[in-house]
Amino acid sequence: MTGTQKILELNAFDMKQGAAGLAPVTEALIRRRRATFGPTSMLFYKRPLHVVRAEGVWLYEADGTRCLDAYNNVPSIGHCHPAVTAAVAKQMAILNTHTRYLHDGVYAYAERLLGTMPGAISNIVFTCTGSESADLALRIARTVTGRAGLIATENAYHGNTTAVTQVSPSSASTEEQPPNVMLIPAPDTYRGGADALGPRFAKDVQHAIATLKDRGFAPAALIADTIFSSDGIFPGDAGFLADAVDAVRDAGGLFIADEVQPGFARTGEAMWGFMRHGIVPDVAVMGKPMGNGFPMGGVAIRPDLLAAFGSENGYFNTFGGNPVAAAAGMAVLDTIAAERLQENARETGAYLRDGIVALGSPVIGDVRGTGLYIGVELVHDCESRTPDRNAAERLVNAMRERNVLIGTAGKFGNVLKIRPPLAFRREHADIFLEAFAAALTAATP
Amino acid sequence: MTGTQKILELNAFDMKQGAAGLAPVTEALIRRRRATFGPTSMLFYKRPLHVVRAEGVWLYEADGTRCLDAYNNVPSIGHCHPAVTAAVAKQMAILNTHTRYLHDGVYAYAERLLGTMPGAISNIVFTCTGSESADLALRIARTVTGRAGLIATENAYHGNTTAVTQVSPSSASTEEQPPNVMLIPAPDTYRGGADALGPRFAKDVQHAIATLKDRGFAPAALIADTIFSSDGIFPGDAGFLADAVDAVRDAGGLFIADEVQPGFARTGEAMWGFMRHGIVPDVAVMGKPMGNGFPMGGVAIRPDLLAAFGSENGYFNTFGGNPVAAAAGMAVLDTIAAERLQENARETGAYLRDGIVALGSPVIGDVRGTGLYIGVELVHDCESRTPDRNAAERLVNAMRERNVLIGTAGKFGNVLKIRPPLAFRREHADIFLEAFAAALTAATP
Repeated sequence: MTGTQKILELNAFDMKQGAAGLAPVTEALIRRRRATFGPTSMLFYKRPLHVVRAEGVWLYEADGTRCLDAYNNVPSIGHCHPAVTAAVAKQMAILNTHTRYLHDGVYAYAERLLGTMPGAISNIVFTCTGSESADLALRIARTVTGRAGLIATENAYHGNTTAVTQVSPSSASTEEQPPNVMLIPAPDTYRGGADALGPRFAKDVQHAIATLKDRGFAPAALIADTIFSSDGIFPGDAGFLADAVDAVRDAGGLFIADEVQPGFARTGEAMWGFMRHGIVPDVAVMGKPMGNGFPMGGVAIRPDLLAAFGSENGYFNTFGGNPVAAAAGMAVLDTIAAERLQENARETGAYLRDGIVALGSPVIGDVRGTGLYIGVELVHDCESRTPDRNAAERLVNAMRERNVLIGTAGKFGNVLKIRPPLAFRREHADIFLEAFAAALTAATP
Repeated sequence: MTGTQKILELNAFDMKQGAAGLAPVTEALIRRRRATFGPTSMLFYKRPLHVVRAEGVWLYEADGTRCLDAYNNVPSIGHCHPAVTAAVAKQMAILNTHTRYLHDGVYAYAERLLGTMPGAISNIVFTCTGSESADLALRIARTVTGRAGLIATENAYHGNTTAVTQVSPSSASTEEQPPNVMLIPAPDTYRGGADALGPRFAKDVQHAIATLKDRGFAPAALIADTIFSSDGIFPGDAGFLADAVDAVRDAGGLFIADEVQPGFARTGEAMWGFMRHGIVPDVAVMGKPMGNGFPMGGVAIRPDLLAAFGSENGYFNTFGGNPVAAAAGMAVLDTIAAERLQENARETGAYLRDGIVALGSPVIGDVRGTGLYIGVELVHDCESRTPDRNAAERLVNAMRERNVLIGTAGKFGNVLKIRPPLAFRREHADIFLEAFAAALTAATP
């Protein structure tokens, strides 16, 4: 697969084809976007959304159409949640400065956030994005271990900085994979089976360590999003990751848990993805859902690692951990608890998954997930299991025509990614399932 | 200078010494900070600030003390400016999503921002921070030129990602300088004189290109903050940079203007630092003052470069260019115009500079700057010009005791960095000058 093919994701509007046939207002916006963002910036869907407002699990288009959001994990507690908008508006008017001055609210948030982590992970560095967090985590791992080797899965995404792109093969790139990075297969329970998943994945990690050794590198870290989202959503059985983490630690490397996707209660089983596996990472990377849209991220870390890094290396993030971010983050944690969003993710997620399974279809090879993160793998037929990229494209766009928003994932681009805000309730799942039944009929033979 | 020495900046509170002697409330906050952020996170001043609110050019401590802010360039149009707080509060409650949907406000801001740039710089990629912007700019430069060589000044700071740290020698690091990076002397008008500054700096660039060539690298880019802030604030005569930019272009490299420090009207002479020099960069990097504290950044770029990069490489920034950032950014541009902040930077900056020169002192070797960015170089005596790091430390803390906030810069750590919000008016300059006179008397022999 070339970079270009990867870039033009299945559910992307093709900017090069132009906007003929769309509403004149939409066409004008696309022209303005192309003029300012250039022709390669990606827009979702064959008929792009022109959004004007949002609330809870709903995005509203300019013509008044209401779209059910089953895709976005940034507005995790719901679009424009009043708890966050109020907290941000209030703090913005009082004080918004950096962490080189003392501020009570910033430490209160740090304490509250770290209180959701295992005791061993007792320090935090605030950043502005998941990418900045992953970049810092990798840098600390390399610096503290004195090693360069990195292990990630073969269609992982951990962020967009130069360094993080090297462990993010899913983001299209013509840059060569450097020899210190080893990519291993995702823990694919559909094509590889669920049996012995832990030992199998650990074996792949051990193989990567051996290959790195042949190339002259020792492992600094294994980095993984513990539900393997961009690989195609492979949560696996809770606990299976422990063997792989042991393997990398036995070789002197660290385990970095990328919590941008599974974190903040999305899996329904725990606040953090790594907790599903009964493991304690050395570093946990946070981003997207942390501030419900206020740009913020963080690196939660073992204090000995941070001290070792910080004693010789300066790191300061100007916007990171500002009082407004702290207020937004605190409102998110409060709301997850107050609205029982973890429980909702578990219950509504299971209901939605069961509903999709019940619908059935010859093109659905597998339905998997945990909490409100569901992958539906589309195949030509269930015997050959040949990935059906085109079916995924048709379905995503057929859902969009029914005003329900989903995306795709996986190295074959054939896995539907269903990842709604955690405020997605049973009534929304019902709307989703009705649309999905109709879309399946319309979009599959 | 080792990493550790560099980290413990002159105006830093020494976390390792503990908080004995400070107010109990302050001491308790420092304990909580140490417990969550670790012992290596840097706090300003020997007696750290405990801030609770801010407005315009004023920061308020918990005990009610009002501190004049002559340091912060993030709240560039003034702390908690009502135009930005209102814009953010309003848009947060309406819609805050990403750029894969169409949104009028985002393009309106992009058009407005690009309208302040030369016509050749007609595309923008939104990010969340200056670091993300610099990281992307360097990556594009390397990808599009197919070259690895980078040139920066010897005490530059361009950001905190792994890749950007390599061209940010001022941020303490034990990581080795890679062979593809060449550091050149800053255009030092104090120790090198103002004569022939353009040819001199261009010669250093040419020498770096030759050295890179010997090492097997061709230049991808020269990156510079056009007033050389962390090098010690060397704006030089307007126009001197043109020769150096010609030199890197003659060798097939790009010029990346880092506008995080001089941009958004700070120099008083132009909206962008590069405009002072009558040059058009290939890429302009934006950050800090862009959203007056709302985390946002951007890469303004020649469209052919972005298209060449984007045709083979995916880049998406989740929070970048969201409708709330666009609203904040638009309010900043509106306010710069409405409150004539560029004119104020020029006029008040000149007034403040003249006032400092008039005060005089045997330890002041040089006063330089443009607009509201002033460097005061402290020396043991004006004949030897030996940098006096300790005098800078004493003065910064003496000013803090007089409730005026400044910082330090320069490879010797002996340059006072005076960089107030652009809302800093003549009346504030008078308060500053009174405190500065007293601090000079108290802190120098």
